[in-house]
Amino acid sequence: MKEKIILKLGGSVITDKSSGECKVNKSVLEKIAVELASRENVVPVIVHGAGSCGHPEAKEHHLDKGLDHTNKAGIFITHRAVCSLNDEVVNALRASGVEAVGIHPLDACTAKNGRLISFDSSPVELLIQNGVIPVLHGDVVMDIGQGACIVSGDQLISCLAGKMAVDRIGLATDVAGVFDRDGNVIRHITRNNAGGLEIRGSGSTDVTGGMRGKIDELLLLAEEGVESELFHISRVSDFLDGRDNGGTRVSP
Amino acid sequence: MKEKIILKLGGSVITDKSSGECKVNKSVLEKIAVELASRENVVPVIVHGAGSCGHPEAKEHHLDKGLDHTNKAGIFITHRAVCSLNDEVVNALRASGVEAVGIHPLDACTAKNGRLISFDSSPVELLIQNGVIPVLHGDVVMDIGQGACIVSGDQLISCLAGKMAVDRIGLATDVAGVFDRDGNVIRHITRNNAGGLEIRGSGSTDVTGGMRGKIDELLLLAEEGVESELFHISRVSDFLDGRDNGGTRVSP
Repeated sequence: MKEKIILKLGGSVITDKSSGECKVNKSVLEKIAVELASRENVVPVIVHGAGSCGHPEAKEHHLDKGLDHTNKAGIFITHRAVCSLNDEVVNALRASGVEAVGIHPLDACTAKNGRLISFDSSPVELLIQNGVIPVLHGDVVMDIGQGACIVSGDQLISCLAGKMAVDRIGLATDVAGVFDRDGNVIRHITRNNAGGLEIRGSGSTDVTGGMRGKIDELLLLAEEGVESELFHISRVSDFLDGRDNGGTRVSP
Repeated sequence: MKEKIILKLGGSVITDKSSGECKVNKSVLEKIAVELASRENVVPVIVHGAGSCGHPEAKEHHLDKGLDHTNKAGIFITHRAVCSLNDEVVNALRASGVEAVGIHPLDACTAKNGRLISFDSSPVELLIQNGVIPVLHGDVVMDIGQGACIVSGDQLISCLAGKMAVDRIGLATDVAGVFDRDGNVIRHITRNNAGGLEIRGSGSTDVTGGMRGKIDELLLLAEEGVESELFHISRVSDFLDGRDNGGTRVSP
């Protein structure tokens, strides 16, 4: 019996966020593709962040604050940036023999004041059933409250997990896990200890809330009974094989 | 009061179907873009066919007959071909100052045995409301009956018109209208005269039924009370301005 998993690839992992320009980490993508191609025990849905291919554009056009009659061109510009990254992810997977196809949230989702209110996941589910790996991404989404908004890959995971029966969720990031103020990985977060945690933030451009936003999404997921794990990208094979990945587990 | 219209650009109009390879008619796209950019009386949704960028791939992988465990790569290959055409259409519109963005049916629709059964049109409607022109296209769509199928631009129009309040629908093609056997344009088709018509077929690769398939879609639309017009691409300005375009009207 194959496990159905969602694997999130952080924007900081698959792009270089230091320069402020879209720069894809192709070598990382190739490694992840090889890992996925060799796994027969899992059926993955891939969700990736935007990193340097989308966040700077979203910020420049302040789409996180919605539309204001001056920034509608930002919809296309931001969407194109993150779609070009999505193309690279899909191409890397396909080059390793993974039958992947990109799915763009702008086409299928709507939001209200930044939170998804509609997302028909049936194309994603039918792709999986037919042996095709859908690759989704954080994206601009039209918004009935504020015109448009940015929906993070983390929010998408949360939404997808609420619709599909998923066995495991993993978030591969550029850090070993969620760090406390002293730089130690917090191995386990639950609703009970989340409030008191001192979490170290992210330094780069991120319009979707960085690590604190991520934890909030994962806690929402945990409230629905879905556990997730956050770990360093170098431990992705441990996650895929179900071994300890040295990261942070977020559970109900 | 602006009119809400759907303008379908036939695959034979915006691509060269003679060679069997994807070849975009950029000069035609530029002319259409200029027409649309100068119109303030209409709010268009653009839908285009695949022409030589998608039909040959769909045929090679026989996606019109569904998935059979040998052809799932055809989903990506066909989708990529028609998305590359969609990029060209969007870029041509944007180059003329039309705020356009591509929307891909694979991401948002599902079908059953070749007919659409789900399509959340709210992203399309919200784009229009915010002054952005959505550009959709005939596409591969996942199918709960046969795995995958090809949904024509004509079927999409029909589906969209059933969901949105549309004032007028126009199909710009490479012919002056629907021809009878003697080569004369049939000016008016209704359910009453449709059965007895001798309609001249299309010569090139078309996995979605050519002119006969088009008429069937437009008759379905007419049954729902929505009239449509089919005319030569050179008459698109007549259509946009609401003048006689010399083509075929399909009405209830």
